[in-house]
Amino acid sequence: MSASLPTLQHIRDAAARIAPYATLTPVLRSDELDAVAGAQLHFKCENLQRGGAFKFRGACNAVWSLSDEEAAHGVVTHSSGNHGNALALAAATRGIPAHVVVPEGAVRAKLEAIERAGAILHRCAPTIAAREAKAAQVQQATGAIMVHPYADARVMAGQGTLVLELLHQCASLDALVTPIGGGGLSAGCAIAAHGLQPSIAIYGAEPAGAADTAQSLARGARIDSFTPDTMCDGLRAFVGEPNLQALREHGVSVITVSDEETVAAMRQLWQALKIVVEVSSATVFAAVLKQRERFAGKRVGLVLTGGNVDLDALPW
Amino acid sequence: MSASLPTLQHIRDAAARIAPYATLTPVLRSDELDAVAGAQLHFKCENLQRGGAFKFRGACNAVWSLSDEEAAHGVVTHSSGNHGNALALAAATRGIPAHVVVPEGAVRAKLEAIERAGAILHRCAPTIAAREAKAAQVQQATGAIMVHPYADARVMAGQGTLVLELLHQCASLDALVTPIGGGGLSAGCAIAAHGLQPSIAIYGAEPAGAADTAQSLARGARIDSFTPDTMCDGLRAFVGEPNLQALREHGVSVITVSDEETVAAMRQLWQALKIVVEVSSATVFAAVLKQRERFAGKRVGLVLTGGNVDLDALPW
Repeated sequence: MSASLPTLQHIRDAAARIAPYATLTPVLRSDELDAVAGAQLHFKCENLQRGGAFKFRGACNAVWSLSDEEAAHGVVTHSSGNHGNALALAAATRGIPAHVVVPEGAVRAKLEAIERAGAILHRCAPTIAAREAKAAQVQQATGAIMVHPYADARVMAGQGTLVLELLHQCASLDALVTPIGGGGLSAGCAIAAHGLQPSIAIYGAEPAGAADTAQSLARGARIDSFTPDTMCDGLRAFVGEPNLQALREHGVSVITVSDEETVAAMRQLWQALKIVVEVSSATVFAAVLKQRERFAGKRVGLVLTGGNVDLDALPW
Repeated sequence: MSASLPTLQHIRDAAARIAPYATLTPVLRSDELDAVAGAQLHFKCENLQRGGAFKFRGACNAVWSLSDEEAAHGVVTHSSGNHGNALALAAATRGIPAHVVVPEGAVRAKLEAIERAGAILHRCAPTIAAREAKAAQVQQATGAIMVHPYADARVMAGQGTLVLELLHQCASLDALVTPIGGGGLSAGCAIAAHGLQPSIAIYGAEPAGAADTAQSLARGARIDSFTPDTMCDGLRAFVGEPNLQALREHGVSVITVSDEETVAAMRQLWQALKIVVEVSSATVFAAVLKQRERFAGKRVGLVLTGGNVDLDALPW
């Protein structure tokens, strides 16, 4: 089922599968930010998830979906960011090997975190083609199972589990906003949200400098050549094919925001919510502020995706 | 009862009184910090409390302890920091005036926050004598009820409510560590903790440059002349007389930490927990690291007191 789309039942199964390992993250509120936005904002804090990002949910679901025979050979992915780290942490919960293909030039602190989590690193040239070739090679040599960062139904189902929690924590929502990178989070969340409450309007926040999803939806076909130009390092991936299909089916509207708007929103989140969120996460609040009229007076869920930040290089 | 000590029952009453207004703050865990400390750490996140600090609990309990006749005249305090802001927010929940006496030279951002919360500011010279004289004058002119930042049983009872939550959230503890400034938090928490679990060892973390409590406990009498020298602006107050009595009765041990140790701990907390905590809050983690052997293998509760930080002037 790895390239198709998950159902609400898959997401419920995922929630049961990851419950022993994942954190039930809190939902924060702020009178101050509600006043700024003119809406009732419910912030789902995945920066407080294990590994500092929602990615642990999908990786953990993928790892624990495997049969014992499959799992014995371990898992492999290509990611220099939060997904690589999440897969390493998830594999450790099952005591199986994790192979992570990382491009030359990736951020050292992130690579160290992935190694600390117990993964075996495989270096390659910094191109998509080189990453995929290296991952395929590792897969052949070890028998490890590929866990794609987003174009994978097990991963999407895992990400969607946060919506089951969120709707339990705040009862009902008029709208839900997630960042969009590869689309694993937004697809999983859209399927979960509409499975439980078909009336929820689903929005994606995308950096103006990596707005391939907005353009793909507008032209009705997936764009796959594009040079992203944004500080939001977590949102530079092209949207996946099954992900785009899910976004289309669920009528997801994309709001694009500039990096300047996102950095201002990030600072407001730190100041008012007293939490550390990475720049990619702040796109959702920037999007709500940018299109205030769409959200005015509504109950809005916002997914704060991660908190892995270099504290010596804050963007303000 | 405002100058005596509260009982467990007062703290339970306070919890019921503030429940409609205060946030039930989450308890965060971190495998990474557990490994660093060699103990099982449970961080009670009062930086996520309304107003960004635990102070809202005590202020809110004081405000809602008043009769309608008392409340009609409002409340008054002297504080340029989190307590002034908390009292303003608490008074707003009851729709009564809050008068806050602030010394010249107080941090502008904090004064603006207090005004934004709806308080009436009264300026005075930056000495303890001037503050108290001005507060007495406001009290006489308006009939407002004085709510002292820490030497007040209603305030101590309110602060103690966080321990009721914490012990519900993590079932049992071997030790509890809070920062010590005036002693309102530590007294309230010690009474609540021992009321529920007499075996819990209670620790206070105090900056080496404001260690009046450590010295007062050592010499058996309260020190009240002292020039604090620490970055921990929330912990510069002298311990109150009733507070000191409570700490003595509950066998609270004080661990002093240098500002350098505290800043290093603060950075580790931001990095691992993904939250914004102010420097005063980090004393508790610095204390646990400083005396690792006391906490080794234990279940330790640590109170992270606040998150009101100037994001343009981080101390690293």
